[in-house]
Amino acid sequence: MTTTTMHPFDSAIQLAAIDDGIRRGSTHPTWASMVGPFGGITAAILVRAVQTHPDRIGDPLAVTVNFAAPIVDGDFDISLRAARTNRTTQHWILELAQDGEVKTTATSVFGIRRDTWGDTEALPPCVPPPEEISPDSAQGDFVGWSRLYDLRFAEGPFPGEDAQPSLSTTTMWMRDSARRRVDYPALTALSDVFCPRVFLRHGGFTPAGTISVTTYFHADQQQLDALNDDYVLGAANANRFSGGYFDQGAQLWTRDGVLLATSHQVVYFKA
Amino acid sequence: MTTTTMHPFDSAIQLAAIDDGIRRGSTHPTWASMVGPFGGITAAILVRAVQTHPDRIGDPLAVTVNFAAPIVDGDFDISLRAARTNRTTQHWILELAQDGEVKTTATSVFGIRRDTWGDTEALPPCVPPPEEISPDSAQGDFVGWSRLYDLRFAEGPFPGEDAQPSLSTTTMWMRDSARRRVDYPALTALSDVFCPRVFLRHGGFTPAGTISVTTYFHADQQQLDALNDDYVLGAANANRFSGGYFDQGAQLWTRDGVLLATSHQVVYFKA
Repeated sequence: MTTTTMHPFDSAIQLAAIDDGIRRGSTHPTWASMVGPFGGITAAILVRAVQTHPDRIGDPLAVTVNFAAPIVDGDFDISLRAARTNRTTQHWILELAQDGEVKTTATSVFGIRRDTWGDTEALPPCVPPPEEISPDSAQGDFVGWSRLYDLRFAEGPFPGEDAQPSLSTTTMWMRDSARRRVDYPALTALSDVFCPRVFLRHGGFTPAGTISVTTYFHADQQQLDALNDDYVLGAANANRFSGGYFDQGAQLWTRDGVLLATSHQVVYFKA
Repeated sequence: MTTTTMHPFDSAIQLAAIDDGIRRGSTHPTWASMVGPFGGITAAILVRAVQTHPDRIGDPLAVTVNFAAPIVDGDFDISLRAARTNRTTQHWILELAQDGEVKTTATSVFGIRRDTWGDTEALPPCVPPPEEISPDSAQGDFVGWSRLYDLRFAEGPFPGEDAQPSLSTTTMWMRDSARRRVDYPALTALSDVFCPRVFLRHGGFTPAGTISVTTYFHADQQQLDALNDDYVLGAANANRFSGGYFDQGAQLWTRDGVLLATSHQVVYFKA
């Protein structure tokens, strides 16, 4: 007899259809972060919620998730509706609530991709392959969920207190430790794996949390299939810190230079 | 006797409070663009709508606007509510509808800025001052509303058919032609003044339209006061075009190197 254990990512994004416009999920201790669950898993769950809807057309093009209040341990309900369905795009509005209290709001655009002219202007970071870099353990000591990823830092590792670089750039290879293949929810989560950039500038922990994150999906299903469970190259940076807030950007690439996603967020910090 | 004419920007963002959670506005022919009004003015109107709400705290930190369907000429109603109010941040959900049909959805985060450590990592583009560059007229021939701005291109002007650069970067000085001072709604609009990047790559018009735009506001009120009605330096680029969509990013700077806002959008195109 064999027992199959569900991957922690799949457990976390599992949703029950309460009715046409409500999905119920639960927090999982594995994904606990500083305050509530890892934001990337919440964003992944919201993308998954739209995917489960029978009216959904196409695949994710964009998702914006606003972290309004900490999600506490336990069940949550996601209400979702298509505010507008066009021929090739569809606009979703979502709210995640616990005991009737809104914790997260989101909008997402799904769309059908067509064959068109294409080009990538951004350049992938020039770094050694993941096989030539040792896996990192520092972030795993800080938040447990990051042990679910095999992270290999080429630049800007999770900071120790002695390091305070003048630029908050991180470039790293990321792969699911159990080699779960990358789908749209997984790509959503990967775009938020980078620690808050203020940690790098201040040489370690300082209270900080994402307020709002927007991810644009460039990869089509074929490109995700080709990626399968391989490493994704992520690069994150920041533009400006001021008034208790900063912005953080990220790009996710395949080994072959396919730009999978770009992501942007505004983060609250105390320092 | 003197008559004062309202500035076209102020006319466009004028809203009547129908009740606590509804604001009514009207389209203005001056702002007509390819399909419906200029997206930047719609985004500005949504930011303005939150500003008019008696429960609003702080100033804009982030706004995401999803262009679900074309706004037609005439009145529109904006429904808005604070999904969550924290001590220093507030999360808004907005929908713009005409005859009960949703045309635009949005979320916005407002927040109170505090004195903190700060730094700007991004570097402003290195270009000649606006006084040394001639004003452009090409974009004004294409969409009438752009005549409301004094645009001076340092790089990547509005494309003629003979120019097809391999990078879709534009760097330009932008100022309101009538010297209206820059406030948060005006900054919102400025972040969307750049034409779709696919125009540059294809040497002119091709059907294209913003699907979703997110702007992060870095400037505090003091910095906007200092800017007053001076030129803003804008830089726009694109990362990847594929499957009928591309992303476009923009940074807005003062002459003195203050990063005012960063903005990102996903755009639909045919080519």
